[in-house]
Amino acid sequence: MGLKDIGEFGFIDRISPQCCINRERVYKAIGDDAAAFWSDPKRLTLVTTDLLVERVHFQRSAVSGFDLGYKALAVNLSDIAAMGGTAREAFVSIAIPEDCALEYLDAIYLGLRHLAGEFGVNILGGDTTASHQDLIINIALTGSVPEAEILCRDGARSGDLICSTGCLGDSRAGLHLILHGILRDTPELEKLYQEHVRPRPHLREGRFLARQGGVSAAIDVSDGLSSDLQHLIDSGRTGARLQADQLPVSPELEWFGRRFGCDPIEFALAGGEDYALLFTLGADRAERVQKAYQQEFGQGFSIFGEITESGEMELVSPSGTRSLRPSGWNHFQLQKQHGSE
Amino acid sequence: MGLKDIGEFGFIDRISPQCCINRERVYKAIGDDAAAFWSDPKRLTLVTTDLLVERVHFQRSAVSGFDLGYKALAVNLSDIAAMGGTAREAFVSIAIPEDCALEYLDAIYLGLRHLAGEFGVNILGGDTTASHQDLIINIALTGSVPEAEILCRDGARSGDLICSTGCLGDSRAGLHLILHGILRDTPELEKLYQEHVRPRPHLREGRFLARQGGVSAAIDVSDGLSSDLQHLIDSGRTGARLQADQLPVSPELEWFGRRFGCDPIEFALAGGEDYALLFTLGADRAERVQKAYQQEFGQGFSIFGEITESGEMELVSPSGTRSLRPSGWNHFQLQKQHGSE
Repeated sequence: MGLKDIGEFGFIDRISPQCCINRERVYKAIGDDAAAFWSDPKRLTLVTTDLLVERVHFQRSAVSGFDLGYKALAVNLSDIAAMGGTAREAFVSIAIPEDCALEYLDAIYLGLRHLAGEFGVNILGGDTTASHQDLIINIALTGSVPEAEILCRDGARSGDLICSTGCLGDSRAGLHLILHGILRDTPELEKLYQEHVRPRPHLREGRFLARQGGVSAAIDVSDGLSSDLQHLIDSGRTGARLQADQLPVSPELEWFGRRFGCDPIEFALAGGEDYALLFTLGADRAERVQKAYQQEFGQGFSIFGEITESGEMELVSPSGTRSLRPSGWNHFQLQKQHGSE
Repeated sequence: MGLKDIGEFGFIDRISPQCCINRERVYKAIGDDAAAFWSDPKRLTLVTTDLLVERVHFQRSAVSGFDLGYKALAVNLSDIAAMGGTAREAFVSIAIPEDCALEYLDAIYLGLRHLAGEFGVNILGGDTTASHQDLIINIALTGSVPEAEILCRDGARSGDLICSTGCLGDSRAGLHLILHGILRDTPELEKLYQEHVRPRPHLREGRFLARQGGVSAAIDVSDGLSSDLQHLIDSGRTGARLQADQLPVSPELEWFGRRFGCDPIEFALAGGEDYALLFTLGADRAERVQKAYQQEFGQGFSIFGEITESGEMELVSPSGTRSLRPSGWNHFQLQKQHGSE
């Protein structure tokens, strides 16, 4: 049985159950012209959206439906996390080629609902249509945040510390395994692979940091540390100095670097898809926030640089100081980049 | 110069100006991880989303960029209209193949901003990425409506009148001209073509009807009268009886029918993409609402049937009564349907 047989509405009936997690704030879920839900009156509403295109963001043959659905939502949740917000309602648009099995689609929605359930997000609607060749998924996600607590990109000031809620570069190493068909024959390699296919959105960390005060700017690391840090600098009209030996590199990535002859620092700087939060923190608040964070999460965040007035990014390492350039992803130079992998 | 040269952020810089219409309700527009805006505390927030895929919903060679952008937003505005709402903020995701000229993309955003400006809608964000072959546009649109005034699909009751805010079938005739390469050599044909490529969202009509009271259910006519009416019947567990000679058929469609040997009634029943509002109205309120509507818009809405308890749709014409089946669009049977055109 295929999509042609069940039609759009059959497909919607198939994917609708369990999409609505918190019914009390929902007036109309899937099934009307638009979804309707109450907004909390004292909070800002957030909206983010991400479009995933087959052969650009993923290869259908190389990713399970579950992981694809999971990650499609995870990248949006990460954007809400980077604003210090709480995720609310998701809207999933999907364009489906004829050769896409219903079981694969079901698995996509299993992955979506699994992650949505973890963070109390309702899937309230979307759009389903055909596609001639590529599978396409767009998710629009709303969230909310108290106005006084919102974390933006443009608040970093000279002297602020540069911090991250997680390790950087692991996801890029996981992608390396996929692109080179490397067998995951150790726990280290499995861990790196999981960081790539099932990144954990740092919503709880973002919300916690937003409540603390003292966090001056935040962004999630999607394109890579050097590219995303550049956004903070551009927005705040500042510069940045990073300490190479303090970058948050996991033991697994160190191990990977030794085994495959790669530089973990380069992976951490340019990797992308980490979905940790990169944030800046007033130096006078750092000790208090770090202590509270450690109490909440059992481990601290990483501090590996500071905001400067230079207008440039620079990396300090034992061999000297060099200037850094944004090295992340340009979707429109896809072939070139894949060619250099 | 192409997209590869300017990159994603160059493209965003290019499309961002004039996207934000009402700055006073916006906290963060394009340029952060998510947009942030205040919701009116006494109203329901609405969200709708539509995904347009090249070769499924449009042929790039057959539609101007302006018209594509216009229609991509129009179909979403129409969904907010069908809820009785006011449109608020739009989020545009676009996946761009390498052979798509920047001028074509600019024209898409001209069309988007033109229509957004007409209805005071902010374009607050989105996502831009590459595509290997097809141009893809997803728009997520928020709106709001007072809780007491929301128009849903499930309120139609036996005895309610079946009404429309506009003519039906014109858009289908316009599509016929495109599919058959027919020259638009008369004002009638130009009118039908325009109804297809630049449908007017009936937001003002929807808002007006929502305020009146007495409107029991509403939907916008996107798939075709018989298909969309079926949604109202399914939602309300009712039936419907339509009067063929009272269906809202334009003089242009009558003229088209004579010239090309088509039945205007069939176009009105099965055409789709009309984006008029189909609604049901308590018979006791009809006279008052129609009078107020005429005062507001200079002409009345069409009344062409009534809700029954039969569970079926039927069409009454001089030649007798026949049962109606939903005949609208199934995206997943695309080839078959185009084959029968």
